[in-house]
Amino acid sequence: MLLFDAKYKEECISMRKIEILDSTLRDGSQTKGISFTIQDKIKIIEILDFLGIHIIEAGNPFSNPKDRELFKLLSEKKLLNSSIAVFGSTRKPNSNIETDGPVSAVADLPVEYVSIVGKCWDYHVTNVLNTTLEENLKMITDTVRYLTKKGKKVIFDAEHFFNSYSNNPEYAMKTLEAACDAGAYNLSLCDTNGAYFPDQIFEITSKVVKMFNTKVGIHCHNDTGMAVAASIMAVKAGACQVQGTINGYGERCGNADLCTLIPNLQLKMGLDCIDPKNMKNLTYVSKSLSEIANLLPEEKSPYVGLNAFAHKAGMHSDAIAKAADSYEHISPEIVGNSRQILMSEVAGRGAIINIIKSIDPTIDRNSQITAQILATLKERELEGYQYEGAESSFEILIRKALHKYKPFFKLISFKVIDEPSGNENNSMAMIKIDVDGQEEITAAEGDGPVNAMDKALRKALERFYPIIREVKLTDYKVRVLDSNAATAAKVRVIIQSSDGIKHWSTIGVSTNIIDASWNALVDSIEYKLLIEN
Amino acid sequence: MLLFDAKYKEECISMRKIEILDSTLRDGSQTKGISFTIQDKIKIIEILDFLGIHIIEAGNPFSNPKDRELFKLLSEKKLLNSSIAVFGSTRKPNSNIETDGPVSAVADLPVEYVSIVGKCWDYHVTNVLNTTLEENLKMITDTVRYLTKKGKKVIFDAEHFFNSYSNNPEYAMKTLEAACDAGAYNLSLCDTNGAYFPDQIFEITSKVVKMFNTKVGIHCHNDTGMAVAASIMAVKAGACQVQGTINGYGERCGNADLCTLIPNLQLKMGLDCIDPKNMKNLTYVSKSLSEIANLLPEEKSPYVGLNAFAHKAGMHSDAIAKAADSYEHISPEIVGNSRQILMSEVAGRGAIINIIKSIDPTIDRNSQITAQILATLKERELEGYQYEGAESSFEILIRKALHKYKPFFKLISFKVIDEPSGNENNSMAMIKIDVDGQEEITAAEGDGPVNAMDKALRKALERFYPIIREVKLTDYKVRVLDSNAATAAKVRVIIQSSDGIKHWSTIGVSTNIIDASWNALVDSIEYKLLIEN
Repeated sequence: MLLFDAKYKEECISMRKIEILDSTLRDGSQTKGISFTIQDKIKIIEILDFLGIHIIEAGNPFSNPKDRELFKLLSEKKLLNSSIAVFGSTRKPNSNIETDGPVSAVADLPVEYVSIVGKCWDYHVTNVLNTTLEENLKMITDTVRYLTKKGKKVIFDAEHFFNSYSNNPEYAMKTLEAACDAGAYNLSLCDTNGAYFPDQIFEITSKVVKMFNTKVGIHCHNDTGMAVAASIMAVKAGACQVQGTINGYGERCGNADLCTLIPNLQLKMGLDCIDPKNMKNLTYVSKSLSEIANLLPEEKSPYVGLNAFAHKAGMHSDAIAKAADSYEHISPEIVGNSRQILMSEVAGRGAIINIIKSIDPTIDRNSQITAQILATLKERELEGYQYEGAESSFEILIRKALHKYKPFFKLISFKVIDEPSGNENNSMAMIKIDVDGQEEITAAEGDGPVNAMDKALRKALERFYPIIREVKLTDYKVRVLDSNAATAAKVRVIIQSSDGIKHWSTIGVSTNIIDASWNALVDSIEYKLLIEN
Repeated sequence: MLLFDAKYKEECISMRKIEILDSTLRDGSQTKGISFTIQDKIKIIEILDFLGIHIIEAGNPFSNPKDRELFKLLSEKKLLNSSIAVFGSTRKPNSNIETDGPVSAVADLPVEYVSIVGKCWDYHVTNVLNTTLEENLKMITDTVRYLTKKGKKVIFDAEHFFNSYSNNPEYAMKTLEAACDAGAYNLSLCDTNGAYFPDQIFEITSKVVKMFNTKVGIHCHNDTGMAVAASIMAVKAGACQVQGTINGYGERCGNADLCTLIPNLQLKMGLDCIDPKNMKNLTYVSKSLSEIANLLPEEKSPYVGLNAFAHKAGMHSDAIAKAADSYEHISPEIVGNSRQILMSEVAGRGAIINIIKSIDPTIDRNSQITAQILATLKERELEGYQYEGAESSFEILIRKALHKYKPFFKLISFKVIDEPSGNENNSMAMIKIDVDGQEEITAAEGDGPVNAMDKALRKALERFYPIIREVKLTDYKVRVLDSNAATAAKVRVIIQSSDGIKHWSTIGVSTNIIDASWNALVDSIEYKLLIEN
């Protein structure tokens, strides 16, 4: 019995539709250094849904309690575009499917798709799973049939499929046949250890596509640096589901990068993956994910990397000015990215002149003050400041340069005390300020020194500027620059604030995290007062 | 007249020899953030020579004075394995080759190879170069013939060749014919804006290989994430020179990465690129280059990346223990890399049992204590701990569970004071501890509260444990978890320490950054005392 017959697959290929399965939360979370919280995972699902990914593989609730909690929360969540898949394995060898805990628990989850990983490599069945080839086929049949009967669409993850096929093509095909006959929604061919070359992937995928009427998917890893190319070649061979992760996150060298694959498939091959109007959100999605993962944003990634359209001064920038397509394969705006001409002061002015003009329209790009501001900016960036993402601090910097700034208060003294020995270390901050000759002294305590500082400063100022009661800090980020200097290293703090309507972000840099946070806090408060006065 | 006839090319292919041209110093130096000094360039040349790269494209002396100086120094340098190529362009339109400054200066340099970039794309000739198609062919002929007569081996860099061929195959082939007839050493087909897919590269390269008797080279950029795959497919089509850069450095998304290409060609395809005994130096070469470039070392790069053989998933680590090749396409030692088993919530017993056994060999994977430790690990990760990258804190956790741990000191009181108002905020820390009934009180100041805490703690302990004078903190990282809680958010601190011989890393998590840092600091000091006692 087949859930999907030949007609479906032909339709899928002739419609030039490619189904995208995102595994950032499952395979991606295997990346060294990534440890998503449940809130992170929910945020990522919202972002993937917004991009229009078809299937989100959200995790494996039987490998860890975090994912169990996640699926609880997901059962109450409505998504606009995406369906959720849960990840699991075939039943254990020589066990009864009806009493196999993990399989029946997966069946009970309120999700549309189930990814079931099964062994296809004879060597792996006998040497890692320690069972017979025959029993492994039964495990596949039982599991896929059981879940299909329970109404799930079963994505059969054919683990090590390409190794399996190379070693014992007959057995490899039998595993797919078992899944297919048991009603699998699709056969997802996995190059699990990332060893296969695109031409090999093409050849083997072609054979599978010809042999089965079920949809075929492709799941590649990047251990030979060719996961994207291999996925593309599988699609050319007839695969119509592509699995990957945002930014290519994943164990070892990562999975096939969806931020490269989606535009390759859609913009270059004319296939239909996501709503075309969402293509311009791709760079945003890549950056958001690196932010959530607390990894550096991708630099040289195709399409979405910070440098993907960066040209160094010289021949190329000249040619770009004459004919952009001579050194750009697509226009960066299509994926929401932008061109950078590096080491070019002219470009630098162009970027900041709009902000300057918004404060003082009489200034233009050739004013002396513009050059001064640019010089200050470059100096600050050399110190570790980074104003992309801290635009309000940059605006304050410009206002100071234009003498369009007055301080709203004078700090007389400030002291923060921590006692890390206690069980509950409530940091304490004492502050004394002067506002137009009137002094105020107060204190506050908080979770950590920065929280205490924040509360004390606002408590002291509220008497003079009641409006700052509206301000809430919504985000606080710390990045250690030059972390080799260890605890004496320079840190960059970025704070995001909101008054419920407007959002702004400010920055502080110092070798002392308290100072860096203080500078970002002061900018945040002053910015609110500036826009209200 | 052809310098190399068909016999040479056939021999090259039948011998399965692939010539490697490294362009790290030329195309690689276009990377955003890279600015090599002359000493850097010399060091890189020595490293490439040591690896056994055939041709090193050292730079373009007519684009910058640094490269002029470099070629002066190189003329006195003896290399073991590599030849140097200088980079230049065809003569200017409508000029006389004998009086074209850059071309004749290139001819006078004491180098074996000259890379000459020429235009092949009709659109580019007319729109960027602003000359006629006919004149462009003459420029190629004149330049290649002149340099060949001067005894140089001319590598003809056919810029935008794949765009050219797609747009006007007849003209594209004419440009190659001009270079070939004028005596070019090889025809290097460049996918300059990185737009082409591996199957297109294969098809077009095959046509060139069939048409010309000169050696064919391939030069790919990574703008669709397939530079490595495209280069491989060109080799399958008969190209016998591969151009790329170490770590894939290069403008925009980078060039084809030689650290991936060399093992792909040599280990997977059985072709001969570098001396097999040098393959184990590849990881060292990659790391050295990132060190010299002052960029972060590659993390997920195939073969040579820090994480290229890092395993996290429980299932995978278990399988690795049983049969390494199930999740590793090659043995990491072959390229001088090493395997890592990461600690994490998704890790199974297999991953942690080795650490447990190293502390107490009587415990096995089925012991009750193993399950307990695994449960604690998963709980801790739910709280925000992350033990991969903080293995020493994990070891302390295990020792505590096994009751193989005694505290080395008791904290009586601790106070950290910050005054963010001053220009130089030296944080101050006061500490009082008890070691076996003896008390010690002291204080220290530092760059920031954590630095002050670190100094105070070590100052207090030194009297009792002089050995901790050897310990230095080498890295300090902060990650804000769930940053939406702003300054009251939970933070994770990871500290790396070293005593000059051993390196270890520890973790602390708290809503208070001071507490989190304190916990990581204490683990670091205790770990040192544990391994010494």
